[in-house]
Amino acid sequence: MQRALSVSRTTGNKSTFPDWYQAVVREADMAEVSPVRGSMIIKPWGYGVWERIQQTLDRRIRESGHDNCYFPLFIPLSFFAKEAEHVEGFAKEMAVVTHHRLKNIDGKLAPDPDAKLEEPLIVRPTSETIIGDAFSRWVKSHRDLPLKINQWANVVRWEMRTRLFLRTSEFLWQEGHTAHADREDARKETLDILEMYREFAETVLALPVIAGEKPENERFPGADNTYSIEAMMQDGKALQAGTSHYLGTSFAHAQNIRFQNDEGQLEYCHTTSWGVSTRLIGGVIMTHGDDDGLRLPPAIAPRQVVIVPMLRDKPEDAEVLAFAEALVKDLNAQFALGEPVRALLDTRAQRSADKRWNWVRRGAPIIVELGPRDAASGQVTFMRRDALRDGDKVKSQAMARDEFVAAVPGLLAEIQQALYDEAKARLVANIRSDLTTFDQVADYFGALSDEEEEASAFRGWVRAPWSRPSGAALEAVEERLKALKLTLRNAPMDQPQTFGSCIFTGEPGVEEILIGRAY
Amino acid sequence: MQRALSVSRTTGNKSTFPDWYQAVVREADMAEVSPVRGSMIIKPWGYGVWERIQQTLDRRIRESGHDNCYFPLFIPLSFFAKEAEHVEGFAKEMAVVTHHRLKNIDGKLAPDPDAKLEEPLIVRPTSETIIGDAFSRWVKSHRDLPLKINQWANVVRWEMRTRLFLRTSEFLWQEGHTAHADREDARKETLDILEMYREFAETVLALPVIAGEKPENERFPGADNTYSIEAMMQDGKALQAGTSHYLGTSFAHAQNIRFQNDEGQLEYCHTTSWGVSTRLIGGVIMTHGDDDGLRLPPAIAPRQVVIVPMLRDKPEDAEVLAFAEALVKDLNAQFALGEPVRALLDTRAQRSADKRWNWVRRGAPIIVELGPRDAASGQVTFMRRDALRDGDKVKSQAMARDEFVAAVPGLLAEIQQALYDEAKARLVANIRSDLTTFDQVADYFGALSDEEEEASAFRGWVRAPWSRPSGAALEAVEERLKALKLTLRNAPMDQPQTFGSCIFTGEPGVEEILIGRAY
Repeated sequence: MQRALSVSRTTGNKSTFPDWYQAVVREADMAEVSPVRGSMIIKPWGYGVWERIQQTLDRRIRESGHDNCYFPLFIPLSFFAKEAEHVEGFAKEMAVVTHHRLKNIDGKLAPDPDAKLEEPLIVRPTSETIIGDAFSRWVKSHRDLPLKINQWANVVRWEMRTRLFLRTSEFLWQEGHTAHADREDARKETLDILEMYREFAETVLALPVIAGEKPENERFPGADNTYSIEAMMQDGKALQAGTSHYLGTSFAHAQNIRFQNDEGQLEYCHTTSWGVSTRLIGGVIMTHGDDDGLRLPPAIAPRQVVIVPMLRDKPEDAEVLAFAEALVKDLNAQFALGEPVRALLDTRAQRSADKRWNWVRRGAPIIVELGPRDAASGQVTFMRRDALRDGDKVKSQAMARDEFVAAVPGLLAEIQQALYDEAKARLVANIRSDLTTFDQVADYFGALSDEEEEASAFRGWVRAPWSRPSGAALEAVEERLKALKLTLRNAPMDQPQTFGSCIFTGEPGVEEILIGRAY
Repeated sequence: MQRALSVSRTTGNKSTFPDWYQAVVREADMAEVSPVRGSMIIKPWGYGVWERIQQTLDRRIRESGHDNCYFPLFIPLSFFAKEAEHVEGFAKEMAVVTHHRLKNIDGKLAPDPDAKLEEPLIVRPTSETIIGDAFSRWVKSHRDLPLKINQWANVVRWEMRTRLFLRTSEFLWQEGHTAHADREDARKETLDILEMYREFAETVLALPVIAGEKPENERFPGADNTYSIEAMMQDGKALQAGTSHYLGTSFAHAQNIRFQNDEGQLEYCHTTSWGVSTRLIGGVIMTHGDDDGLRLPPAIAPRQVVIVPMLRDKPEDAEVLAFAEALVKDLNAQFALGEPVRALLDTRAQRSADKRWNWVRRGAPIIVELGPRDAASGQVTFMRRDALRDGDKVKSQAMARDEFVAAVPGLLAEIQQALYDEAKARLVANIRSDLTTFDQVADYFGALSDEEEEASAFRGWVRAPWSRPSGAALEAVEERLKALKLTLRNAPMDQPQTFGSCIFTGEPGVEEILIGRAY
């Protein structure tokens, strides 16, 4: 196959999905491993996608009444001891700052023993504790509520096994934090945000998701309820793409966030927190990538139309460039998906075939190749990245120049929709809801060793009724699933009226839950 | 004086400038001290200003051909040992991560001794070393050059004495890093960026600056040349508002950044780096603030026009709100300073007088108060924050509603210019160039103790010829200035043809240099 990646996402029986993922991240110039264990370098094209995610999501966060702030990177160790469950959940793998100076000791740079901190500082893994502390000062009366803030920041959770975008020790995210006068208002916020994430994932990332509530064992440490959106990757695994937590009053108790109600009495606030991260980029790659590289939804493509001029160091180059420059200018004056079109003329000093394939790898939605013949005839020849091939052959189509300029907004909207539809069809087709016993589920997924898991065939998810056991009974369920490398994903918001028996306990079901392998 | 701050920036002989600064930061809701020593919390209004700075500067950085990336927060200790001068300059006050896990030891959370890092990690104070390492992989041939990237990030330099925005252990900034094939191209980049910073400071921040080259002793550790823009605060002190460094080939040698030239030989790159930070916000406050609080240049005001409705829980409130909503809508459809107008209707449940004064403190450029009479008569009564008072009295003016909507773009441009002009006049009037000996300079500034310095009267700067001594001779100059709490700021780009004698050495002058007290 002409110029496909060296590794396919589905080669016969033995899937090489993780290798394919790595190849796409590399060949699409998205990111690379850094010399700092567990941290990545996000390259311009990958960071451009993150900037698009920031811009489009930030608009939604603002419009729903949240203000952006910035809180310290470091959190005093003692803050983590305040909320008991939160400690248990987070006090494990965190970067600890113990010194504030280096010193030349016997010719080697080392932490200066005289500059040891009295209290170690933690590099934030999440900011509930430090933001809650500020809330305790900012909230005085019911008139200060709701208090709704957000920050875009880097966080660190030490990871032993890392994978670019999906699991890195440092990652970028937004974290929203709000305080409310009562449970009802805080729960409404939690669910409004869940819906904001669903709409954002589906509309902007073209990522169909299932929104639902996490079971007790998968809750954020200290939360009363955790909700998530779950997306299905092309290997059938689930990716948790965003979470929204109703924290009850437990953080308010730990941080003393209280307000005077209109009767003059002090009450504890109900708080929420919620976030999405650079992990979304991994989800976009694993959802939309193909054997030629990445395919980016136009809404987050840093460049939506890329023009590669075919230059030959000949006099007619000037004509080609002039034609291309005017074309880019006209395209950038168009609007698509509610924003100005982002077109680029790629004048890098490389062979045009190499440039074309670089843009295919990167997933630019529309790629135009312009030669002297096009310039002379006023034609534009382009490829749609969402439908690059006809069998093994690369497809391209020609249009009169003005017709193309006018068609681009529609084409971009079409590509956005086509990527969504393709992923949506895959999601819908691959949730089995016909398995009624745990044995059937076990049979379907099969017990796998680590290597087998990586090499397993596509399975998708199972949706089944359960009795929502808790405590030890839930732990037992978790253990049985763990043996199959499975986890409980979420109980979808959209539930039927009646339920079959619980596939774990045989008791009457109270809701349906999604089960699958996950990232 | 009605509602002025409790502290004035110039009260009689004894200046209380630092107290005034603190009061403005607090009363304008810009930022606050955090429980983490040396770190600040940037509140929504302050962060909004930073976002405006990011948006307007980022556009300039992109348009000049730089791509945004993201590099790791942590840098391995060994990276700092590579560039000798850089070690000396930076290996002092840095946050050192030594452990990656906490553990419950005897009932107390503590760094887990089993999770000690083999090599400590430094929280980036600046990223030349880690970015240079990436450049060494990314640059292969002259066709890869110039390589021009930028990142927006947080950095940490441990500080003992901190002041909000001006000197904090953690701060936010952008850092540009570029690699070039030769000295000429890298020097051009360094100076182009210096000019970009000057234009940005003057046009967007309304901050008149002097661009020039830092003397040897003030260079960035490892740089061949460091350039800065220096702004004059209302206490006469200098604030270094941005720097641009030509790094020669020393970082390229340390990091092995080499390219194959068109004859096939390996050569070392010439690199640059440059940055501005949240410190700019401190500069804006100390330049434009007055005894009523902050005055924000419209180009960076998160809200340019704020409408405070006077509501009385009476039926006519509905009319006032409808009038105000339509007004905000029409204002937001206008363009000022090349962007859509940012108007806000403040419907917070507070007394309208308190809200008005809150917006005065925050420095919103135009503040409108709307009551039932305005709504009924179709009038708008507003205050210009740049010219709030006539003597002790607050000034306001009235305009017909449609006239006001049409006038706003012009008013905002006028306010932007007025703030610049006021600061520019102060800068120009307060650089003395008539002192010809060091004794005269010493007399002018006087020798001050720490407390006296804080309480000193306005002095401004001195511009004087010098012979540009280096090494020990320069150290001697530094010592003499230090006794007067003075520093060399920069040698302005704009130099005369001939020079008087050096005020330090009596030798023939080779350039003029700025001397002043500084932040």
